[in-house]
Amino acid sequence: MMGEDILFVQGNEVVVEAALYAGLGFFAGYPITPSTEIAELLAARLPQRGRKFIQMEDEIASLCAIIGASLTGLKVMTATSGPGFSLMQEALGYAIMAEIPCVVVSVQRGGPSTGLPTAPSQADVMQARWGPHGDHSIIALTASNHQDLFAVTVDAFNLAETYRTPVVLLLDEVVGHMREKLLLPQPGDLPLVERLRTSVKEGTDYHPYLPREDGRLPMSDFGGVHRYNVTGLVHDMWGFPSTHPKVAHDLLRHLVDKLENRVHLITRYKEFMTDDAETLLVSYGSSARSALHVVESRRARGEKLGLLELQSLWPFPQELVRDRCSRARYVVVVEMNMGQILAEVERCVERPDRVFLANRIDGTFITPDHIRDILRIIRGRGV
Amino acid sequence: MMGEDILFVQGNEVVVEAALYAGLGFFAGYPITPSTEIAELLAARLPQRGRKFIQMEDEIASLCAIIGASLTGLKVMTATSGPGFSLMQEALGYAIMAEIPCVVVSVQRGGPSTGLPTAPSQADVMQARWGPHGDHSIIALTASNHQDLFAVTVDAFNLAETYRTPVVLLLDEVVGHMREKLLLPQPGDLPLVERLRTSVKEGTDYHPYLPREDGRLPMSDFGGVHRYNVTGLVHDMWGFPSTHPKVAHDLLRHLVDKLENRVHLITRYKEFMTDDAETLLVSYGSSARSALHVVESRRARGEKLGLLELQSLWPFPQELVRDRCSRARYVVVVEMNMGQILAEVERCVERPDRVFLANRIDGTFITPDHIRDILRIIRGRGV
Amino acid sequence: MMGEDILFVQGNEVVVEAALYAGLGFFAGYPITPSTEIAELLAARLPQRGRKFIQMEDEIASLCAIIGASLTGLKVMTATSGPGFSLMQEALGYAIMAEIPCVVVSVQRGGPSTGLPTAPSQADVMQARWGPHGDHSIIALTASNHQDLFAVTVDAFNLAETYRTPVVLLLDEVVGHMREKLLLPQPGDLPLVERLRTSVKEGTDYHPYLPREDGRLPMSDFGGVHRYNVTGLVHDMWGFPSTHPKVAHDLLRHLVDKLENRVHLITRYKEFMTDDAETLLVSYGSSARSALHVVESRRARGEKLGLLELQSLWPFPQELVRDRCSRARYVVVVEMNMGQILAEVERCVERPDRVFLANRIDGTFITPDHIRDILRIIRGRGV
Amino acid sequence: MMGEDILFVQGNEVVVEAALYAGLGFFAGYPITPSTEIAELLAARLPQRGRKFIQMEDEIASLCAIIGASLTGLKVMTATSGPGFSLMQEALGYAIMAEIPCVVVSVQRGGPSTGLPTAPSQADVMQARWGPHGDHSIIALTASNHQDLFAVTVDAFNLAETYRTPVVLLLDEVVGHMREKLLLPQPGDLPLVERLRTSVKEGTDYHPYLPREDGRLPMSDFGGVHRYNVTGLVHDMWGFPSTHPKVAHDLLRHLVDKLENRVHLITRYKEFMTDDAETLLVSYGSSARSALHVVESRRARGEKLGLLELQSLWPFPQELVRDRCSRARYVVVVEMNMGQILAEVERCVERPDRVFLANRIDGTFITPDHIRDILRIIRGRGV
Repeated sequence: MMGEDILFVQGNEVVVEAALYAGLGFFAGYPITPSTEIAELLAARLPQRGRKFIQMEDEIASLCAIIGASLTGLKVMTATSGPGFSLMQEALGYAIMAEIPCVVVSVQRGGPSTGLPTAPSQADVMQARWGPHGDHSIIALTASNHQDLFAVTVDAFNLAETYRTPVVLLLDEVVGHMREKLLLPQPGDLPLVERLRTSVKEGTDYHPYLPREDGRLPMSDFGGVHRYNVTGLVHDMWGFPSTHPKVAHDLLRHLVDKLENRVHLITRYKEFMTDDAETLLVSYGSSARSALHVVESRRARGEKLGLLELQSLWPFPQELVRDRCSRARYVVVVEMNMGQILAEVERCVERPDRVFLANRIDGTFITPDHIRDILRIIRGRGV
Repeated sequence: MMGEDILFVQGNEVVVEAALYAGLGFFAGYPITPSTEIAELLAARLPQRGRKFIQMEDEIASLCAIIGASLTGLKVMTATSGPGFSLMQEALGYAIMAEIPCVVVSVQRGGPSTGLPTAPSQADVMQARWGPHGDHSIIALTASNHQDLFAVTVDAFNLAETYRTPVVLLLDEVVGHMREKLLLPQPGDLPLVERLRTSVKEGTDYHPYLPREDGRLPMSDFGGVHRYNVTGLVHDMWGFPSTHPKVAHDLLRHLVDKLENRVHLITRYKEFMTDDAETLLVSYGSSARSALHVVESRRARGEKLGLLELQSLWPFPQELVRDRCSRARYVVVVEMNMGQILAEVERCVERPDRVFLANRIDGTFITPDHIRDILRIIRGRGV
Repeated sequence: MMGEDILFVQGNEVVVEAALYAGLGFFAGYPITPSTEIAELLAARLPQRGRKFIQMEDEIASLCAIIGASLTGLKVMTATSGPGFSLMQEALGYAIMAEIPCVVVSVQRGGPSTGLPTAPSQADVMQARWGPHGDHSIIALTASNHQDLFAVTVDAFNLAETYRTPVVLLLDEVVGHMREKLLLPQPGDLPLVERLRTSVKEGTDYHPYLPREDGRLPMSDFGGVHRYNVTGLVHDMWGFPSTHPKVAHDLLRHLVDKLENRVHLITRYKEFMTDDAETLLVSYGSSARSALHVVESRRARGEKLGLLELQSLWPFPQELVRDRCSRARYVVVVEMNMGQILAEVERCVERPDRVFLANRIDGTFITPDHIRDILRIIRGRGV
Repeated sequence: MMGEDILFVQGNEVVVEAALYAGLGFFAGYPITPSTEIAELLAARLPQRGRKFIQMEDEIASLCAIIGASLTGLKVMTATSGPGFSLMQEALGYAIMAEIPCVVVSVQRGGPSTGLPTAPSQADVMQARWGPHGDHSIIALTASNHQDLFAVTVDAFNLAETYRTPVVLLLDEVVGHMREKLLLPQPGDLPLVERLRTSVKEGTDYHPYLPREDGRLPMSDFGGVHRYNVTGLVHDMWGFPSTHPKVAHDLLRHLVDKLENRVHLITRYKEFMTDDAETLLVSYGSSARSALHVVESRRARGEKLGLLELQSLWPFPQELVRDRCSRARYVVVVEMNMGQILAEVERCVERPDRVFLANRIDGTFITPDHIRDILRIIRGRGV
């Protein structure tokens, strides 16, 4: 029946629907604005499907719980916002090091600290990349509308399983709380990546950190037929701690390269009239909605604007951005922070002096008018 | 007596001596390699001086405890390493937002996660900048030898008090654990910045977040004669929560600008033969020791090498780096990570393609030989 | 029958097959690793065809023997490795001066001196150019795989006959000893250049050093109908010694220009995706196999790498290299020595500071991983 | 008595006098024009002093004989010309690999091959660098007048002993055969470097290839109290063959770096009015006599010419040449070959298009007039 296929929902609900679609088996969380609806809805939906929901005492416990559950073979997720995400940084580093597939949703509020709990911001982008200590890499995805958000959420699970890695789903409060239409995909519409389990039989040694020829590392459900070690320490292919320089070097390069060398496979983006754009907007999340509006309204007036909307923020799609920016006279990054993606764009273009920032940091949404004002200034036409 | 003035000590002991010299009044911590000696020594030394040491249940509690103690008027410090520093990110954001003077020592180990507890690394540089969520700024200092480390530790307290900000003292394991001579400064040798206390009298309203003309915000010892609010939420000059866009905008700009606009006052560095250097090494911490050795040995052979040693990593001294790098044909960042300061250097030079990385990520120290090998490759001479 | 057309052989066997295909009539040699199989196989194969094989007392005698045999009208070859090739330098100079067609195979080992007899190296490239005293020029060819090696060996004979010059076939141990498929060309598949014999009849003066209009010098089988002089001294068109400055000047220019002015005719090379390469690898011999692997694997990831594989090393194809390098941002010479072809590439490009060396000098093969590591450093990404 | 102190001699005699002054203990050689006088004179002079002279059957034997004699603790020398020097390339590589101090005099004739035995040329410069196979380095010295030649010959012995290396004394026929005044230095006037013998006592292991802290390798007279291995194979610190990659890598780098990294210590040169030279001549050997004459005569006319006269050709003094050339508008290399040092100069200057060649290749001496003609052409004033 069509009524069940078309929803009019908040972004947080979209995440719930998509996670269930992707096969979410376990959720642990601690409620925090503006992500609370995710936990709230899953508290009802998961048990209905015979899957597990647990509210933990805090965010640290939440991430630790889903790490454990993931090891037993389930697809797992937690959801939080800035302060909770800050608390998760140590366990996130553990999941990176131990290569645990999991999805961590962070619905950004204004920050730092408790900041502006109900106000939009995109200021946790750099934290999503650099929050845990030590050299590492991570996948962070985002979306600007509900149809994309559904697909990107499913993708988050797929990428987590493919690369045995935590994936951060980094939304902003506008996307999390706005309501718009969602055409619910049917089973089979979107591809799902399932846990790659080892083909090694019981009684044979299983190496949890021995890559296959294609670079992937098969897993064995913890508590099942194989015994193996999992640690946050630098470890060898059996999972046992090692301080051998070559083991350390190779493990670190593996953790980083498995993502950084596959940027082209991980990158998700959309583009709008970038081919001949003299002014290229680069944006993501809800900011990209305003940016797209500006592009469409200015194109109607004959101005050559285009939009590159990033859906994967990390690993940063350098080649893509360099290529698209190379054609434009002006590049304008539209985001709700002090220029976090701006710095990445500057780094990968030939002419950083042609890259500008259209931003907002006061807890209010960045509007098309605000972007247009900044475009005037950039072109030397003042306010 | 000379015997008391010259010490042969570990870097961690230097931090202890310098903190006491600076007037440390309260230390709370949880032991973790390779920082443990700091807590261990202070557990004995602070009570001897009638000051307070407390071992907390974990790193979160430790940072929270010193935040509280700082509010009561004491100079405070905690010390930890990667995993503990990750756990501190939320409270660190709180200290940034609430503008609490405190010193957080992080003696880096190999990471991510528990990683290589006893091995050298400098891979937490980006975390020190971006670990907490939300737009913010921070001061991070480091040093390559014990005499400098003493001065820099005193500076950490001075800067914390001057700017009402957490200061990260970001050492690496080599500096923390190596022993070398320290000529202990006498009282008065190094200037000390004391808490700026409000001149507002009891019975008059004290505004904890109302800047003086020079931008500094006087404090009032908590539990003293004034009552005021302290929060991690966006707040006004009374410390009361506000969601007003202008208040939010101005607070964020204040938190960032009070440091970023004073980079020239905050920057600490040393330079060695940079004037005519064709190859400029940029380094910090123990890596700078090897870099300096290479400079000196190559200068003896007539090669024009120079070294810019950064002692303040954040806010990043862009102008300084740009200036020094502008004269060199090759710029080589020497660090023990995958290129964290490298990225900052690349961002601020004219020719990022002339910036190279001499690094090590395998838990072994970067030696002069290793740097020389990489210099060979960079100059197109291969291995 | 197909069985006879497809061989699975060592590179040294390929040289044998190709030399026989080209019409080798006489081989003199002294066995030395890693070239020995060439002599060993020819000791059986040549007599079967009614042609001559002789093992000499040393390498000097070997080269002298084939020089004499060549004068009688036969296509000739010898084979050796580093130490033996060093011994041949005087006789090689004689062959250059007297313009004797001959092919000298040198299968490089690790050096200098007896060095590493069984280990791969490409460190005799400069010796192949500059081993004999006096201004001169020479042709040196190489190949990275057996199919090419067959063609290049035939070419060596063709070029020797065309230009009356010794041609050095400079292999490395990996190419010499590895086994892979060779599709044996059929007679007629590859063009053969036969000895250009004089049309001057018996009883008429034959001038051994009087060029035809096209610059080529016809030969007359020694011991045949003409009497003439052959000497290593500067000589006139009759072959008689002269100290006349113009004779000396013209002879030297002739010896050099006959090759250097025909670089475009002599140059053999292959290229892989050089058109849009941002990083251009320049390589040869077995190193080019690893280089090609890197290009292919990186292209699959979207990186713009290309490979220029040189098959003729001398005379150095300056114009070709300059042209291909002019399009690239990075040029990386891949070779197993301290940068011998590197220096030639640097000399002919606009921006020598953009030319790097990916090399190996420890007697182990340069692998794709090793090249990738060096590409990381060159791009400023460290280890 | 003064009569004995001032000689009027050929350059070859100067070499003899200087070798005896330096302490030559053993000479083995085979006569060849234009070096024959050296052997001839030493056949008389050495026995008079109770030292050894032996005429060998050829040049290979000659170099091998002095290598053996050097191992027994004597200062040794041989002398030859182009064809003989070509024959010595294998044994020269052995001396490089086994680190045998010895002096090889090559008095260049016209080449290649037997060439022009009695005519001047400087065309063996590149052979002196690249004649032996394998990566290696070498010292080659030359001089333009007898007083310098004496000092440079003594230096050849000093450098051979200091660096345990063969040193090539590369003269040209003009210097070898011309007669001019030599003021014979008295004992003590020139410093002498004596064999560095090991302080290891009998019965204790002596390591022939274990460097001291200053990089030098003490020797033990072969046949004396220590037994050790000497080989041309890659070897460890005991002199025993090894194929270990690290041993091979380190040995090769040692052999090359012990000279290339000490270019500033090895470089010998003279300069004439280079400070303000708009046209800088770079020359060596007898060519530098004509070059100096041009500089002096043109300076008298107010033209700003200068001369950089190289006395050490290898390792090539890149830094020196780059520095001196950087000040000049025109650089003109004056040499009697097709541009062998020219190529080195081009490689190390900023503007290779401003480097020109004034040369002669016809067996006649390059005169001041010839250089002046070429200067006219370079400056666009034609012939």
